[in-house]
Amino acid sequence: MTARLIAIDWGTSSFRAWLLGDDGGVIEEIPSGPGIMAVAEGGFEDCFSTLLSPWLSRWPDLPAIASGMITSRNGWVETPYLPLPLDANGLAASLLRHVTQDGHEVHFTAGAVKNPDHGVPDVMRGEEVEIFGHLAGQEHADGLFILPGTHNKWVHVENGVLSDFQTCMTGEIFALLYKDSILGRLATDDPADPAAFGRGVAAGLSRGSLMSRLFSARSLALMGRLEGGDVGDYLSGLLIGDELAVRLPLPDEPVTIIGRGDLAQRYAHAMAQAGATAVVAPPGMARAGLWEIAKLAGLVE
Amino acid sequence: MTARLIAIDWGTSSFRAWLLGDDGGVIEEIPSGPGIMAVAEGGFEDCFSTLLSPWLSRWPDLPAIASGMITSRNGWVETPYLPLPLDANGLAASLLRHVTQDGHEVHFTAGAVKNPDHGVPDVMRGEEVEIFGHLAGQEHADGLFILPGTHNKWVHVENGVLSDFQTCMTGEIFALLYKDSILGRLATDDPADPAAFGRGVAAGLSRGSLMSRLFSARSLALMGRLEGGDVGDYLSGLLIGDELAVRLPLPDEPVTIIGRGDLAQRYAHAMAQAGATAVVAPPGMARAGLWEIAKLAGLVE
Repeated sequence: MTARLIAIDWGTSSFRAWLLGDDGGVIEEIPSGPGIMAVAEGGFEDCFSTLLSPWLSRWPDLPAIASGMITSRNGWVETPYLPLPLDANGLAASLLRHVTQDGHEVHFTAGAVKNPDHGVPDVMRGEEVEIFGHLAGQEHADGLFILPGTHNKWVHVENGVLSDFQTCMTGEIFALLYKDSILGRLATDDPADPAAFGRGVAAGLSRGSLMSRLFSARSLALMGRLEGGDVGDYLSGLLIGDELAVRLPLPDEPVTIIGRGDLAQRYAHAMAQAGATAVVAPPGMARAGLWEIAKLAGLVE
Repeated sequence: MTARLIAIDWGTSSFRAWLLGDDGGVIEEIPSGPGIMAVAEGGFEDCFSTLLSPWLSRWPDLPAIASGMITSRNGWVETPYLPLPLDANGLAASLLRHVTQDGHEVHFTAGAVKNPDHGVPDVMRGEEVEIFGHLAGQEHADGLFILPGTHNKWVHVENGVLSDFQTCMTGEIFALLYKDSILGRLATDDPADPAAFGRGVAAGLSRGSLMSRLFSARSLALMGRLEGGDVGDYLSGLLIGDELAVRLPLPDEPVTIIGRGDLAQRYAHAMAQAGATAVVAPPGMARAGLWEIAKLAGLVE
């Protein structure tokens, strides 16, 4: 297969790259590398050259496309945020082209912004590419997309266009509370327990102040009613349950979860417990989206 | 004035002690010392002896009374949690007496627990003493008490008896988000700004998911609509506003805020913004409560 494109999904704490051939087929993959937080300021171009040297040395003229937090203020090349409504063509028309000192061409995708000037603003970088990967070939799709992660995104798509989205800090708040707050003090690291997770989801779905309900992860443990090994699952369920609760009932349209492994399954289970249904997308949406954008931008045929 | 009692308020991150004379009047004060987190396990008795040696050497038989997290599992002498309803006499009847190796007598107060066996449990240690300090001399008082801190307590009192309470993790969550989350990245340390705080309170009082609204502290800053120096005040207001929102409208009874300096004022301002009224209690409630409990327990006359 002829090499056509290097696609890079470079996030805060992760790096993945694919060497893509005809029709976006995967020829080779670099499954992991340093996220942007692990690269010293000014070190991105060196990091890029080093990580991709096996491909760049063989195909020096191959275009690369990159999305994720690498395009943020803390990344390599900062791109603007494009206002909603936004479709794949809009994103493809706004690629920011950068040529490295070695003469390699990298195209950075823009982010998306909601309410930049009035109301409550919101931003994302990278998730829109995954959604366009899922939508590739089904231009007029509608639906609600959930992209779990450090900063979960809830994205509405109408007729193939991103029309609205909201960020929820569930992932980051879970990590902070579990690692650094009093809630983690009585916790022990045990294998995941679906029952404890479900109990947390039920607590999260119930009404009241989140900051009060969170404390139950400690008070239940203090009373001997929650085991140390269950605290993490309970807390995870509680936060995801709260995230769902304020959005129920969900609109009558397809709900798709785009995410990796365990986390996507947790959301699917929590939604089932809340009486909602969702489909977990197959893996590879970032890669598919990068190929789609590159195609629409004329970088590949 | 004759020395009658040593009163100690020993919390997670603070230590205060008073040498009290007739009628609980202050003879001397040790205004600060290491909180329990700053004392190595097994080091509490040495710490007590060292900090209080000026008083203990002069009055070796003086009883001491202590409240706060020093009575928790992570403290010096763990005392039980007493179930609600709980009044000052109940707390005084349950002091746990400990004699140090040097022969000094220390009486530790119990904590309070709600729903130990069924429903959502909740616990506190120390705040009940402050409330009994405020209630001293007005046995049949009713009211709602708010005790801001790392773990804020909302406590209902009926006829001088603690009848219900709820913990809200506002203080700890603020500290985690401001210091360690992405929300603090664009923040700079500037003098407190009441306008930014009020803007945050308004955002907190509005409906929706807390975990989503929190992200506005970043997105507003990214859009240039919130200055770095205002991020902390905005975030503080947002969390306090959310804490209030789920409890509005407040019951038609006196609302008293017991807390130190700036934080108590923040709650008073946020409540005024929400259309509620509250009175900030004068300082010294922990000391007054320890004296009251010691008196009811017969440690002093």
